[in-house]
Amino acid sequence: MPKISVKGSKMPASPIRKLVPYAEQAKKRGIRVIHLNIGQPDIKTPKIALDAVKNANIEVLAYSMTEGSEAYRQKISGYYRKNGIEVAADDIIVTTGGSEALSFAMGSIMDNGDDIIIPEPFYANYNGFATAMGVSVVPIVSKIEENFALPPISEFEKLISSRTKAILICNPGNPTGYLYSKEEIAQLAQLARKHDLFIMADEVYREFTYDGREHYSILQEPDLEDHAIMIDSVSKRYSMCGARIGCLVSKNKEVIKTAMKFAQARLSPPTLAQIASEAALDTPQSYFDEVIEEYATRRNVLVKELQKIAGVKVAVPQGAFYCIAELPIDSADDFAQWLLENFEMNGETVMVAPAAGFYATEGLGHNQIRIAYVLEKDSLVRAVTILGEALQAYKKVR
Amino acid sequence: MPKISVKGSKMPASPIRKLVPYAEQAKKRGIRVIHLNIGQPDIKTPKIALDAVKNANIEVLAYSMTEGSEAYRQKISGYYRKNGIEVAADDIIVTTGGSEALSFAMGSIMDNGDDIIIPEPFYANYNGFATAMGVSVVPIVSKIEENFALPPISEFEKLISSRTKAILICNPGNPTGYLYSKEEIAQLAQLARKHDLFIMADEVYREFTYDGREHYSILQEPDLEDHAIMIDSVSKRYSMCGARIGCLVSKNKEVIKTAMKFAQARLSPPTLAQIASEAALDTPQSYFDEVIEEYATRRNVLVKELQKIAGVKVAVPQGAFYCIAELPIDSADDFAQWLLENFEMNGETVMVAPAAGFYATEGLGHNQIRIAYVLEKDSLVRAVTILGEALQAYKKVR
Ligand SMILES: Cc1ncc(COP(=O)(O)O)c(C=O)c1O
Ligand SMILES: Cc1ncc(COP(=O)(O)O)c(C=O)c1O
Repeated sequence: MPKISVKGSKMPASPIRKLVPYAEQAKKRGIRVIHLNIGQPDIKTPKIALDAVKNANIEVLAYSMTEGSEAYRQKISGYYRKNGIEVAADDIIVTTGGSEALSFAMGSIMDNGDDIIIPEPFYANYNGFATAMGVSVVPIVSKIEENFALPPISEFEKLISSRTKAILICNPGNPTGYLYSKEEIAQLAQLARKHDLFIMADEVYREFTYDGREHYSILQEPDLEDHAIMIDSVSKRYSMCGARIGCLVSKNKEVIKTAMKFAQARLSPPTLAQIASEAALDTPQSYFDEVIEEYATRRNVLVKELQKIAGVKVAVPQGAFYCIAELPIDSADDFAQWLLENFEMNGETVMVAPAAGFYATEGLGHNQIRIAYVLEKDSLVRAVTILGEALQAYKKVR
Repeated sequence: MPKISVKGSKMPASPIRKLVPYAEQAKKRGIRVIHLNIGQPDIKTPKIALDAVKNANIEVLAYSMTEGSEAYRQKISGYYRKNGIEVAADDIIVTTGGSEALSFAMGSIMDNGDDIIIPEPFYANYNGFATAMGVSVVPIVSKIEENFALPPISEFEKLISSRTKAILICNPGNPTGYLYSKEEIAQLAQLARKHDLFIMADEVYREFTYDGREHYSILQEPDLEDHAIMIDSVSKRYSMCGARIGCLVSKNKEVIKTAMKFAQARLSPPTLAQIASEAALDTPQSYFDEVIEEYATRRNVLVKELQKIAGVKVAVPQGAFYCIAELPIDSADDFAQWLLENFEMNGETVMVAPAAGFYATEGLGHNQIRIAYVLEKDSLVRAVTILGEALQAYKKVR
């Protein structure tokens, strides 16, 4: 029997996936599982986007342009301009989700054996894209005590070698909820210029910021045109994860030219979803205002409830819709499985994402979980109550 | 300025792309360009598929399952059963076009530095996926004189080394139109078993066979379960290239498990397009009968007209909708550009794909072009007439 690739054997499996069978078994036993583990928002997709697809008059569902339709890219450029980011349609390649943009960006700037530095905890699939591209992830620890702020630049300096090609940040962060300040971005920019590195900024949660804070994009930083690559997506912004539309944005022409070659090989991004995404750009500001208010409320409730539990530490999120909580236990892996296998309260239990899967450094995050607050307030309150009770019960048996 | 990757600089640009500006200039001069260069069918997408999207009641356009929806995979499995291929839903991963399936398959079975043997001329984007994965394409020549039949197995044997992990065939072939016989597949299978290689079969044109010939799938070959990986797509079958739905099919559980890890990293295939693709499976047989008859007629017209031109050699296609023609010239690259820059007949000219881009061996195919017969009969006749006249005129100036 022919063997699969070494790379394939190294590809990380989703950190949540191994819990899925336990969740299924719990459901079979008649238990309602409250999912705190997934980043699939429950918010409605703007009707304007879905209607555009319904009303499109298509006879032949043809390939679109490789780089995305001209009209859509023009409109995205307008969206960025409104957000203080000056990019032209030609600086944008429409991709199949932010996911594909991440993989094109990595392929365009890194070779087998190169390093990319990423503050951990980070979005676990960065590991997958890096492994697929033969790139090594070099983690740099950010701490829950500091709300997962940018690690000191001196720590980055220690990790930079001739293999280092890029730094990847997620802003605001999944799973941290941390929003980088303008000063932090400026420090990173300075570092990138000094060592001639690319900075990839995953800004798929750019619209989700709370407490009146403003997002500062990597593309707003002056004199960074050659270094900055931004990753974006409609998935979370318009609650249309299933569309699979994102984009790669850079003012570095070589990067765009190279990413275009990766894009040409796969022909084009999805046409129907592009129609929806283009229309979504006309979503009124009131939609976002409501959504942000809803998430802010959820965050407040979640954090307040978590803080009531003895021994739980929370990093208060300033953006995105994730929150890392440290629990008074040894193994969140074990606890998460136990929650599904052995616990219930009034016929309900919760599924959480053990945070170790978001760290690249072995041994970190084992007592942390990630909670996605993409559920209604009431469910969140019930979920945290269950968590609290479960921690009590768990202590007695473990 | 940080440098792009070596891999990125090696990524091949689309062979047709460099002609695009000349086509645009011709159009600006008021000339109508007949496109023989692209594989975007003009056939209507089945209404049943488009209506399913229009009628879908979606509130939240959510991620689908990573492997594609259970219902859709069950239905695909039924489609294959009807076509004499026994595969279960679990042997299928739904992908973003056949393109993504190709890239997952390569990543799952090959590492940086491995070889894949591909009969040339072949679909040019295989180069792109291979380069992205760090894999070397080892071409094996198939000849226009032999209609691009499978090269002798002894020739394959000469190319197999410890680096060889797989053989990739396209059946029926783009750009050759060649349909492999059951005997040819059996020979390849024997070779794969002997050297413990994977066989990837790109069968995205499986429905397009002419003269009553039947397609024989790699998955129909007995005792090849561990070796065979099939690539499929809805793009051409239902004229829905813009959907971006395909699949990877294999009975080798390790391959599926590994490809699933690549799939998990990118989350899910497009949801709207999956709705369309699932509905498309209910397209009545009469649709295909008509489409096949239409393509067969076009092929007949095209071949007949081409054979009228002195010095032109054609490999008669038995499947897909491409045809390679050898012209009495030295450089099809130059001729194709000249057609757009310097020629017109009654205000029209044609754009063809120079075939060199479909060969990996330097120097091959320079006097060949690929013609996609995805246009109506009348346009095809006019296009070939223009080609004939152009060849006359070209001879005088070159
Ligand atoms: C940080 C981050 N980046 C990128 C993505 C990829 O999203 P998509 O491919 O749906 O755009 C996600 C999805 O959860 C994410 O959380
Ligand atoms: C031989 C072959 N394989 C694969 C593809 C990829 O098609 P898609 O990604 O649209 O399924 C094409 C498209 O032209 C093709 O000709």
